[in-house]
Amino acid sequence: MRAGRVSVVGLGLMGGSLARALAARGVQVVGYDRDADSLAAAVKEGIVHEPLDDTLAGLEQADVVVFATPVGATAKLLTRLAEGRRLEGPSLIMDVASTKRSIVAAAEAAGLGPRYVGAHPLTGSHRSGWGASRASLFDEARVFLCPSATTTTQALRLAESFWRALRAGVEVLGAAEHDEQMAWRSHLPQAVSTALGLTLREADVPRSALGPGGRDVTRLAGGDPDLWTGIMSDNASAILRALAAMEEQLRLFRERLAAGEDGVRGCFADGRDWFDGEPTRTLTPREPAP
Amino acid sequence: MRAGRVSVVGLGLMGGSLARALAARGVQVVGYDRDADSLAAAVKEGIVHEPLDDTLAGLEQADVVVFATPVGATAKLLTRLAEGRRLEGPSLIMDVASTKRSIVAAAEAAGLGPRYVGAHPLTGSHRSGWGASRASLFDEARVFLCPSATTTTQALRLAESFWRALRAGVEVLGAAEHDEQMAWRSHLPQAVSTALGLTLREADVPRSALGPGGRDVTRLAGGDPDLWTGIMSDNASAILRALAAMEEQLRLFRERLAAGEDGVRGCFADGRDWFDGEPTRTLTPREPAP
Repeated sequence: MRAGRVSVVGLGLMGGSLARALAARGVQVVGYDRDADSLAAAVKEGIVHEPLDDTLAGLEQADVVVFATPVGATAKLLTRLAEGRRLEGPSLIMDVASTKRSIVAAAEAAGLGPRYVGAHPLTGSHRSGWGASRASLFDEARVFLCPSATTTTQALRLAESFWRALRAGVEVLGAAEHDEQMAWRSHLPQAVSTALGLTLREADVPRSALGPGGRDVTRLAGGDPDLWTGIMSDNASAILRALAAMEEQLRLFRERLAAGEDGVRGCFADGRDWFDGEPTRTLTPREPAP
Repeated sequence: MRAGRVSVVGLGLMGGSLARALAARGVQVVGYDRDADSLAAAVKEGIVHEPLDDTLAGLEQADVVVFATPVGATAKLLTRLAEGRRLEGPSLIMDVASTKRSIVAAAEAAGLGPRYVGAHPLTGSHRSGWGASRASLFDEARVFLCPSATTTTQALRLAESFWRALRAGVEVLGAAEHDEQMAWRSHLPQAVSTALGLTLREADVPRSALGPGGRDVTRLAGGDPDLWTGIMSDNASAILRALAAMEEQLRLFRERLAAGEDGVRGCFADGRDWFDGEPTRTLTPREPAP
C-alpha cells in the first residue's frame, strides 16, 4: 500500500475492520469514533495510532480519508468539512456506505469530486460495532468503486490499489447503476429476512424454534436498525420495486401450492436451477412469446 | 442403543446419515435404496451390513425399521407391506419425513399404530442423496416424535432411546400440532428462500452476485424439488396461511418504507427484537388496544 497514513472516521464493523486491516499492514491509522470507549479500545489495542477528538482536527493530515459512518451522516459531514476547508490535504477521500448515488452527489456538490471515490465493500455481519470488527473482513470480498463525474484517474487508481492491498476484488461502476443493482443483490435479501422475522414474531415463533435452515434465512434480521433504515431510505425507490416483485413471487407460489403439486414443483425446480447457476430465461412467464 | 439390528429404507441425506450414525455405534444396518449405486456405495463403505433388493424381503428381520423415503411414497409402502404381513417382526416402525399427520394416519389405517412412531429430525442440508450424508447429522439436532392414537408406551420409549443414542434431543407432540408448527418453523422459511430465488431469477441476478448475507437467505432455494413438493403438498393448508401472513408483512414493510424513515426503522427494530429473543407482543399492531 502506497498510503502511509490513513484517517478512518467511524470505528464500527466496517471502519474498525478497515483500521485493523490497515494497521496489520503497517499503515499509520488516524481514527475517530463518537463512542469514546470504542476509540479508547482501538488505541489501547494499538490499531489507532492517533485518535481524533469531536472536532476531527488533524483528520486531513493523511494520504487517504475514509468515512465509515452512516450514509446520511456522511453527506452532512462531507459538506461541513469541505466548507471549513478541512479536506484539502488528502489525495483520496472515500466512504464505505452501502448506497452510493446520494453520497457521491454530495461529495461532488461539496467540491470534493476530483478526489472522491465512493466505495462499497459487499461484506459484513449482522453484528455491529468495534467489538464485531476483524482484520480479515475484506479478504476475498467484492468492493464496488463508484467515481464521481469528476474523479481523476489518479484518485481512482489509488482507490483500486488501496482495496486490492486489503485482498479485496474491485469492480468499478456508476453510482446510480450500483444502487439499482444493490436493491436486488443486497437490500431485498435484507428486507425479506426482516419481514420473515416479523411474520414469525406475529405468530409467536421464537428464532430458537427454527432449524439450521430457518436460522440462515433469518440471520439478517439481526442487523443494525439505524444502519438499515439509512440504507433503505436512501435507495427507497429501487427497493420498493424489488419488494413488489418479491410479493408477486410469493403470491404466485401460494397460488401454485393451492392449485396442486405440479405448480409448486415448478417453483422449486426453477428455484434450484437459479441456485445451481443455470442461465435465467429472458422471458418472464407473464410475457407472451413474440 | 438396545436395537442390535435396524432396517433403513432410503439412503439419501436422512437415511444415509442415519445408517452411518447407527453403524458407527456398532448397530447392524439392513439397507435399501432404489438407486443401485448408492446402495452399493453404502455396502462398500461398510455402513450397510445387509443390502435388500427391490422386494424388500428381509426388511422385517430387524428390531427397528425406519423409512427415510418421501412422505407420499412412505404411506403407500407402509400400506403395501402391512397388507403383505411384512412388518410383523419389528418392535418399532418409524419414518423421518418432515410432515407427520398423513403418515401417522396411514400407519394407523394399516394396522401398524401400536408399534408406529413418526419421527422428524429438524436438521438437514440443501444437499441431498447418499453423497451428502454424514454420521454427525443428528448430533444436537431436535427430533420430534409423533405417536399414533394407539402407539404403546413401550414403542414410544424405544423411539426416544433410539434418537437419544444418536445424540439428538427428543420432543414428543401430536402429529397435527407438529404439522401446524412446522408450517411456520420450517416450511415458511423454505418457501421464502425459494421465492426470493425466483424473484432474483426474474431480475436476472445470479446467486454468485450476492454477498454472504444474501447467500444465507437463499441457501434453502437449493433444496430438492421432489422432497419439498411432497412436504408442501402434504401440509398445504397450514403453509398457505403462513404464506399469506408473510405477504402481509412484506406489504406492510413496503408501505412503511414508502411512508418514510420512522416506519421502516420500526420494522428493523421489531425484527431485531425478535432476533435477540425478546418476548413477542400479544397484540398485533392492527388490533386496537382493549
